[in-house]
Amino acid sequence: MAGFTTPELVAAVSNAGALGALGGAMLPPDALREAIRAVRGLTEQPFAVNLFAPVEVGPVDPDAVERMQRELTPYREELGLGAPGQLRPPPPRVVDEQLAVIAEERVPVFSFTFGIPELAAVREAGCVILGSATTVAEAVELERAGVDAVVAQAFEAGGHRGTFLGPFERGLVGGIALVPQIVDRVRVPVVLAGALMDGRGIAAALALGAEGVQLGTAFLAAEEAGTPEAYRRLVSEAGEEATAITRAYTGRPGRAVRTRLIEHLETAGAEILPFPVQGALLLDIRQAATEQGVGDLLFLLAGQASGLSRRLPAGELVETLARETEAVLAGLTAVS
Amino acid sequence: MAGFTTPELVAAVSNAGALGALGGAMLPPDALREAIRAVRGLTEQPFAVNLFAPVEVGPVDPDAVERMQRELTPYREELGLGAPGQLRPPPPRVVDEQLAVIAEERVPVFSFTFGIPELAAVREAGCVILGSATTVAEAVELERAGVDAVVAQAFEAGGHRGTFLGPFERGLVGGIALVPQIVDRVRVPVVLAGALMDGRGIAAALALGAEGVQLGTAFLAAEEAGTPEAYRRLVSEAGEEATAITRAYTGRPGRAVRTRLIEHLETAGAEILPFPVQGALLLDIRQAATEQGVGDLLFLLAGQASGLSRRLPAGELVETLARETEAVLAGLTAVS
Repeated sequence: MAGFTTPELVAAVSNAGALGALGGAMLPPDALREAIRAVRGLTEQPFAVNLFAPVEVGPVDPDAVERMQRELTPYREELGLGAPGQLRPPPPRVVDEQLAVIAEERVPVFSFTFGIPELAAVREAGCVILGSATTVAEAVELERAGVDAVVAQAFEAGGHRGTFLGPFERGLVGGIALVPQIVDRVRVPVVLAGALMDGRGIAAALALGAEGVQLGTAFLAAEEAGTPEAYRRLVSEAGEEATAITRAYTGRPGRAVRTRLIEHLETAGAEILPFPVQGALLLDIRQAATEQGVGDLLFLLAGQASGLSRRLPAGELVETLARETEAVLAGLTAVS
Repeated sequence: MAGFTTPELVAAVSNAGALGALGGAMLPPDALREAIRAVRGLTEQPFAVNLFAPVEVGPVDPDAVERMQRELTPYREELGLGAPGQLRPPPPRVVDEQLAVIAEERVPVFSFTFGIPELAAVREAGCVILGSATTVAEAVELERAGVDAVVAQAFEAGGHRGTFLGPFERGLVGGIALVPQIVDRVRVPVVLAGALMDGRGIAAALALGAEGVQLGTAFLAAEEAGTPEAYRRLVSEAGEEATAITRAYTGRPGRAVRTRLIEHLETAGAEILPFPVQGALLLDIRQAATEQGVGDLLFLLAGQASGLSRRLPAGELVETLARETEAVLAGLTAVS
């Protein structure tokens, strides 16, 4: 949800008794610090900040960039954009600076994905630490690195795949299979992320052995989220078949609603560039599509149950989820 | 589980209070009738028989067959097999005859996958009817066709994908996302199939809104199953990353443990033939590999949690699953 987690959303979730999380990965260090302080101004409750682990960026083939830019030309024309600017290389090791901010601000909970960053400073600062795993092997590795809990990212989940050991195809494990197998292999608590939209999913996660749940897509629809209007509409209308895991948007596999842009880039001859280069190439298109409300040129990250989302104030959504979960559990007791 | 569901397995499951199911799809009509009668000789409880809906078989390109046979030559040599025999076309409309057997024998429960067969005769015969869906649209279509319950086949499930509306890639929906969305759209009960191996999975299915569960992989390990020894071992050792959905074995996508045969056929240039032709080409290899115990040339259909399987007598497995489910539900009540 990086980009849509406003301080208002984070604080509203925490004030309602859940743990609000700020998606900090795309924020430069100063903006990250500002956002953390904005959250602190709105809540006295614990909250989390999420970052990406450092990702190796290899050399970029200028011819491949040129070929991809040609594929993108029709979309730029449609949106009235001029020729793309020079591709700027991502700033080196921005993660180190972001991590320093997390530690300096003594953020209550620090979570990360895409690998394992250097944890000494945040641990020293007293942060509770959560890492994201898509396989048992990754969960074991995270435990070894000293996380306090493992977030099991299931196949169903929206957003970028967190897989960091081996090819991403091997980390496509449905939640029902993933949670028990991780729970059996680590001692730290397991939190399920993936298509949890109402009390049914949350109760199921608990039945599988998870001790917590993480909801992203459900909160895209919250009033306080910074989700653009066209994004909200398309994600809430998306059926269970509507998403796919694609590299087309950023170069890193992620689950998003299929759009004509994805369909085109996946079938065009041009090679999709590595993360984060592909994402940088698409940035002007995404921004213009957002401003103009051209929904099917947006990058619609969403899980496989986004059609179950509800537009509510975030605090009310948290309360609704808690009430529904209680009701499902009570109903199951009646069965047993 | 077609091929491994011995009458002893089916009867033991039904005698323990669950619903044993005979995988009848690969049985010629006479053998199907014999198997049904054998089950009846071992139990007075209800049981099910599962068939494939009729699948259109297009014309086969002899050159493509030739190319695939060349890819298979090293495996035939390894297994000491001679040159392959002439490819025999599948018997036309064997399903009609199988369906007639189901109706004549008044099988208590009839279940099917791969589409929707003609249901008039089995309905007339008083069979309870279950159809398999991988999407909401398929579930709605099944309800319209008059099924008594829908089996939701999740992404996690072992075996052939049942997708019959649209491309199979669109029917890859994790159980946590699939069940609630189907439950919200049909009035008939929903049964979850997919990586359910112990009480945790079963309790999760109930939390999601399923009124029943279907377990295949878990019963591959049952004492009474006809599962070859090498198959049992490899499936019970398979981790959550070990399976993939592949067309390599039969031409129809199915979830199976990755083997060197799959890896080779998926990356070899030769086109994989349509179902069931590809399966017919591989039949002698599979049979010889079974006899010789060459595990990684077997067709190891299995779900994403097969590593949780337990080798027990089937009746004991049913009782264990029931007891575990009760315990999980009781534990959840304590939470709520």
